[in-house]
Amino acid sequence: MFFGNKIKFKTQIPGPKSEAVLNRLKKLNGAWSLPYPFIQSNKGKGCYVKDIDGNVFLDFASQIASNPLGYNHPDLVKVGKKYAKISPLKRAGQDFPVEEHLEMLEELVSITPKRFDSAFLINSGAEAVENAVKIAMRKQQSSKVVVSFEGGFHGRTLGALSLTNTKKVHKQFYMSLNARRLPLDDTSIERFEHILSAEYSPEEVGCVIIEAVQGEGGYKVVPFDLMKKIRDITKKNNIPMICDEVQSGVGRTGKWWAYEYSGVVPDVQTSAKALQVGATISNKTMFPKEDGAISSTWGGGHLLDLALGIQTIRTIKKQNLLKHNTELGDYIRGRLIELSNKCDTIKNVRGLGLMNAFDLPSPKIRNNLLLGLLKKGIITLGCGPSGVRVIPPYVATEKEVDIFIDNLEKVNNTCTKSSFTHKGKICKYADCGVDHS
Amino acid sequence: MFFGNKIKFKTQIPGPKSEAVLNRLKKLNGAWSLPYPFIQSNKGKGCYVKDIDGNVFLDFASQIASNPLGYNHPDLVKVGKKYAKISPLKRAGQDFPVEEHLEMLEELVSITPKRFDSAFLINSGAEAVENAVKIAMRKQQSSKVVVSFEGGFHGRTLGALSLTNTKKVHKQFYMSLNARRLPLDDTSIERFEHILSAEYSPEEVGCVIIEAVQGEGGYKVVPFDLMKKIRDITKKNNIPMICDEVQSGVGRTGKWWAYEYSGVVPDVQTSAKALQVGATISNKTMFPKEDGAISSTWGGGHLLDLALGIQTIRTIKKQNLLKHNTELGDYIRGRLIELSNKCDTIKNVRGLGLMNAFDLPSPKIRNNLLLGLLKKGIITLGCGPSGVRVIPPYVATEKEVDIFIDNLEKVNNTCTKSSFTHKGKICKYADCGVDHS
Repeated sequence: MFFGNKIKFKTQIPGPKSEAVLNRLKKLNGAWSLPYPFIQSNKGKGCYVKDIDGNVFLDFASQIASNPLGYNHPDLVKVGKKYAKISPLKRAGQDFPVEEHLEMLEELVSITPKRFDSAFLINSGAEAVENAVKIAMRKQQSSKVVVSFEGGFHGRTLGALSLTNTKKVHKQFYMSLNARRLPLDDTSIERFEHILSAEYSPEEVGCVIIEAVQGEGGYKVVPFDLMKKIRDITKKNNIPMICDEVQSGVGRTGKWWAYEYSGVVPDVQTSAKALQVGATISNKTMFPKEDGAISSTWGGGHLLDLALGIQTIRTIKKQNLLKHNTELGDYIRGRLIELSNKCDTIKNVRGLGLMNAFDLPSPKIRNNLLLGLLKKGIITLGCGPSGVRVIPPYVATEKEVDIFIDNLEKVNNTCTKSSFTHKGKICKYADCGVDHS
Repeated sequence: MFFGNKIKFKTQIPGPKSEAVLNRLKKLNGAWSLPYPFIQSNKGKGCYVKDIDGNVFLDFASQIASNPLGYNHPDLVKVGKKYAKISPLKRAGQDFPVEEHLEMLEELVSITPKRFDSAFLINSGAEAVENAVKIAMRKQQSSKVVVSFEGGFHGRTLGALSLTNTKKVHKQFYMSLNARRLPLDDTSIERFEHILSAEYSPEEVGCVIIEAVQGEGGYKVVPFDLMKKIRDITKKNNIPMICDEVQSGVGRTGKWWAYEYSGVVPDVQTSAKALQVGATISNKTMFPKEDGAISSTWGGGHLLDLALGIQTIRTIKKQNLLKHNTELGDYIRGRLIELSNKCDTIKNVRGLGLMNAFDLPSPKIRNNLLLGLLKKGIITLGCGPSGVRVIPPYVATEKEVDIFIDNLEKVNNTCTKSSFTHKGKICKYADCGVDHS
């Protein structure tokens, strides 16, 4: 089923098979909200994925940073084969343990700071955050408020959502835990100190949570000195600090965890996405001692997701991908800055390793650009109000980056014109910023 | 690797290989809380599962109701083979859809009441509840309180946990949404009416959530007329009613969903466990219309879990397992009642279909019995203060039930004596009620 490593169109987008599925999905999916207008097949190689109509796309979105090793990496295919004849794959891993549970914990401990000697495995990034917050509250014992930052995204379950501050639609009408939002700039510490002096005593603050590189909120790299100041004030006041590494972790930034760049070590960290399972990671003393204080039926029990996550870590080590991500990230930012110097519309190039983004002049233009890139066969994702994420799989090379940059330049030159609107069937499905229906 | 369908001991429990893993897991697992003292291997057949030391157990716990079709069911093994060479298995299913997403939605719609024409797929039972509560709140728009019942278990993420009322250790020190707990008896409706007249206006009640058969709380079957009264009061006041079918659903009770026994149809229902993925199911009009109001990176995107869940539903239909579960459930309760008539200590036999339980005189005796059964090679789980769940896979037959009942009688006759204590290495790991260390 080899189809070569290049973009290929066999049909319009969406093709007839994809369109049939999309139309039906729109009726049945309660969460329907303008997915990308093609249906992925199981076929793909490296950075390329094929849809069910035979079209091949270059993926610079990596399943929202969930696909670090690209499509059908031989190491992962080998793991899949090993587990092919086993059912059920989902065991109740906290009550009925499996060896993969232990192996994953050992791999995690091998790639986290020394004081992180223990972890709790669960089912998603949101659940990783929920449990990070829970173990923090259990230490505090009189928590009355939780604290996060403007632009932070920590998940959509109601606890995690209380800490999320990206779009209004994510939170509107939902009940919330009592939370305070800090600005993410020079005034953060002052504002935090004000809360601690005027609103809550330190022991009432359940936790402070931060992404060292914001994800959904706009791929903003938190200044390292601000990370240090936050760590200082949380340490001084004995408030648990959580670093949320769901999107930025497992090597994407060129270090295992994005917070490492700042030199801080938080009290708790999360992981998910690239890890293939959720994890709340900390020192053993931070976890509750009481039986049943935290648990999950499937946590630490999905044989294959665990095995794939374990192999992902091992392959990153074996192929020296942290170094690769650092170097390729420098190349990406270099090429983006080049383009930014040529084109007024491409601004604020930023990122660490393979977690990069740039901004367009407006949300509408950004959405037009995303769709324009897709029409060229390149998958990218937005972030923040008008940002574009550049997050290829770790197996990407300068060749794929060059294809991306060349197409970005072309699309930018047309899509950013004020008179521009997309045409064609694709607009019915994609968030191009204009209603063509 | 066929090992026959029978209980077999090759080593003490835990065997040396299991013990080595357990000792290491105890250090590394932040959520460590006395797992069953053996490490499952990938090998098993029907109701039997082998550990890594070669011991074979009869499983009447079904991975906490997550394993409806038993070990290595040929239909599921076939699905596993089909997906063996595909990576990644986890796609970002809401943004980048896959065909399996649609197929699962179509299967779900085929087994739910007609008005449930839409669903949102997510990662766990807790997330299914979180999203059920979210879509209910989005309808209410001025929610100030959520309502659940004494003994209800709805998950451990902070929103779901606000509605959970089983053990103190599950909730202690965690911040909570504002919630009211109703008794689950003749006084429920009166208490609910009092809340609506004295505390909150109906439009401030975000939702009422109930399990038609309580799970973790003690396998209590909610009287059908009480279910109807709850449905009436929620309808009358336009308060969304959620039935939580995470443990009781997907055919375990002999109907697809336990609430069907009472004749009510709620506004929203959940599913997970036996389904292999999480789902929030409702009428399309109940779901938010705004893009991004609910979502999840991995929701509707795990190719293999979706495919296994789809096949599970199809196999239940094909093998007519609802009828089987009803009949075998009658047989189980018949045999348990027989035993209950002989033994004073076995009480309150109850259940629907293959979701059954009985009580022992005390938590300590219950824990002794669970461990006693395990020493005979039979895996069971507790529920409520002193209950024992009897939840074999749907592929169980009267033969397995007879083995279970025979051993239960023997163990009951020794374990329930007041002077009884367990002996041996097993006690170091299992919750036998007495500290032997």
